[in-house]
Amino acid sequence: MLITLFEKDLTGFDMSYSLQELEALKDFYSDQLLNDTVPFWFPRSFDREHGGFLLMRDSDGSLLDDDKAVWLQGRATWLLATLYNTIERKQEWLEGAKLGYDFLNKFCFDTDGKMFFHVTRDGRPIRKRRYFFSETFAVIAMAAYAKASGDKDAAEKARYLFGRCIEYATSPGLSEPKFTGTRSSKGIGVPMIMINTAQQLRETIGDPRCDQLIDKWIKEIENDFVKDDIQCVMEQVAADGSIIDHIDGRTLNPGHAIEGAWFILHEAKYRDNDPHLMELGCRMIDYMWKRGWDEQHGGILYYRDVYNKPVQEYWQDMKFWWPHNEVIIATLLAYTLTANDKYMQWHKMVHDYSYEKFHDKKNGEWFGYLHRDGTVAQPAKGNLFKGPFHLPRQEWYCMQLLNSHLNKNMQ
Amino acid sequence: MLITLFEKDLTGFDMSYSLQELEALKDFYSDQLLNDTVPFWFPRSFDREHGGFLLMRDSDGSLLDDDKAVWLQGRATWLLATLYNTIERKQEWLEGAKLGYDFLNKFCFDTDGKMFFHVTRDGRPIRKRRYFFSETFAVIAMAAYAKASGDKDAAEKARYLFGRCIEYATSPGLSEPKFTGTRSSKGIGVPMIMINTAQQLRETIGDPRCDQLIDKWIKEIENDFVKDDIQCVMEQVAADGSIIDHIDGRTLNPGHAIEGAWFILHEAKYRDNDPHLMELGCRMIDYMWKRGWDEQHGGILYYRDVYNKPVQEYWQDMKFWWPHNEVIIATLLAYTLTANDKYMQWHKMVHDYSYEKFHDKKNGEWFGYLHRDGTVAQPAKGNLFKGPFHLPRQEWYCMQLLNSHLNKNMQ
Repeated sequence: MLITLFEKDLTGFDMSYSLQELEALKDFYSDQLLNDTVPFWFPRSFDREHGGFLLMRDSDGSLLDDDKAVWLQGRATWLLATLYNTIERKQEWLEGAKLGYDFLNKFCFDTDGKMFFHVTRDGRPIRKRRYFFSETFAVIAMAAYAKASGDKDAAEKARYLFGRCIEYATSPGLSEPKFTGTRSSKGIGVPMIMINTAQQLRETIGDPRCDQLIDKWIKEIENDFVKDDIQCVMEQVAADGSIIDHIDGRTLNPGHAIEGAWFILHEAKYRDNDPHLMELGCRMIDYMWKRGWDEQHGGILYYRDVYNKPVQEYWQDMKFWWPHNEVIIATLLAYTLTANDKYMQWHKMVHDYSYEKFHDKKNGEWFGYLHRDGTVAQPAKGNLFKGPFHLPRQEWYCMQLLNSHLNKNMQ
Repeated sequence: MLITLFEKDLTGFDMSYSLQELEALKDFYSDQLLNDTVPFWFPRSFDREHGGFLLMRDSDGSLLDDDKAVWLQGRATWLLATLYNTIERKQEWLEGAKLGYDFLNKFCFDTDGKMFFHVTRDGRPIRKRRYFFSETFAVIAMAAYAKASGDKDAAEKARYLFGRCIEYATSPGLSEPKFTGTRSSKGIGVPMIMINTAQQLRETIGDPRCDQLIDKWIKEIENDFVKDDIQCVMEQVAADGSIIDHIDGRTLNPGHAIEGAWFILHEAKYRDNDPHLMELGCRMIDYMWKRGWDEQHGGILYYRDVYNKPVQEYWQDMKFWWPHNEVIIATLLAYTLTANDKYMQWHKMVHDYSYEKFHDKKNGEWFGYLHRDGTVAQPAKGNLFKGPFHLPRQEWYCMQLLNSHLNKNMQ
């Protein structure tokens, strides 16, 4: 627990952190990732009979359902290939990544080239959705697998599918509209997922389209979603970037906006600490920490209304695992880039809350859903939306980040 | 509060209820309906500029959003016309019903005859959904309005639209599938809503199709959804009525099943206390009370897994207003039909819980969404799904039911 890792008092004046403390933090994330989170899932989730992964698991790891969520088949493939690419050339991880890669190719595409959302254990389609998130997760899965395996066909497939995602993102007509055109709106989710997908593609197998597109999507977020006058990052705006003053349009998702912030800070770091991107990402964290952090119980509230009115969703004050993973990454990244102790203080707050409340001390991994007061609302570790992704990505990213930060500072 | 209405001790042996107690209960429901619930909504929600109703209101009644949910435009129309038809020929109620009826006709139908789900204040479409619940609520609205106004055209429209609903209910191909055909399933919601719609149509303006269709839908529930071997009413089953052992298929909604039970008990009453239907409805209540009642905190849990595994929905243990309205009706109806004190005891338990936890003593009406422990999770009184329907229907139904029960018993 990080609680024991820091010597400094949060209320004290000396808020700088020693390299020893950061070293201990790195070891903590590495240990959690490799000795707690990853072993919860693998190898037991490998489906050697039908391919892919069996991920819908109860808190003790027993299987709740043998269906397969396509998002998570892609995300698990990405994780295994990424561990292989960046941590250790472990055959088990490469073998797992291949199981996922093959399952995606064989069973997860419809005849029109769009991917399914939910399939049976043996790959028969159950549900297809309008969104193209199955596709973006397949891009990062295929790219990471291509790097791990050296499979040129996988690299080509990843780049082709990324092209399809660009089409879906820029021609909304390609996916059938759920809403009429009366009140056109756009979400921050599309530019966000496209930035992250492009970053992953670029940093595994490379793609000449990425830099310029990332620029474009960051500009869209900056121009249309970040509102300095009210110190807020909107989740949804009108086509022209104005606020839609109806319940849906007013709904904020602070953890999601802070995920967007760290994608931008990641870009700042990639571009040799680009000062404008650093400032933008930190500004987004500053705005949304204030709106999302629960002063009463700790943790990140799921939804807020921009004007503090009630939101449509009744579960708006619950604590979900993944926003905490995103805020843990964002605050650590902001600290390593700016050396501003405020971010390390926030990192410690969200880290301590998360590893105390979400982490399952008995069986490993995290619970997904807490009541506002921090008690467990639903104990499953895996379902249609939760699986081996946000938590291991956070532990992996923080471990890698501290590694490079410490190496730089010790040179 | 009912707490003060009953003299009997729940733990005692003498559990029969006096006519004086039932009289006091009737007065309570009548008083809540006419002096608390209805005045919260009307006349302030009448939109005299654009027609229809402005129903998305915060706890104090202030307007959160001027959009209009088509389900609730129909439901509010039904309520006002029903109050006019059954309680008092108040011009305000008829005028309101006409506002709703005209808005439905003018703005809520698409060119293909299907209804929208969500429109702007001035009736421009925002969203259309695959389901035909907008249509079923419009049927009961038009039928009740036809009775109130004597408008023959409204009666004809109600009957025509009911015919469309029968088509939608029996030819799933008419609404575009959200799921592929791999694992075909059907929900209890369709036969339930059709039973209630037919009952309303029959009991306002009459329709020769209703009796036979109600029979058919009750048989479908009895044969395919009520499982005696495991003492359960399923929410979803395979086309042949078998249990689908996947997360979605295992998910129960006890309050919804108990709503289905009271539609069947209502039919039993309509058919001069049909013993088979009485037994079926009571059996459904018995099964689902055990699965839904929260022994720890009181109130009805929203979702349960048939085998007590975790359900997909993270908010599964919340307390929603409407299942409580349904269970309040069902238990009172079961008691008046069977004279079994168990049902009055359950009625008292759910009544006391609801009027203590959901009822807003300060501003009137009920909150919609409580945490499992009974604290308010979201204070709005109206949104896309909540408005003047379940609560006033419950208070109206219980008042009418006690009226007829007491009249019968005093003869």
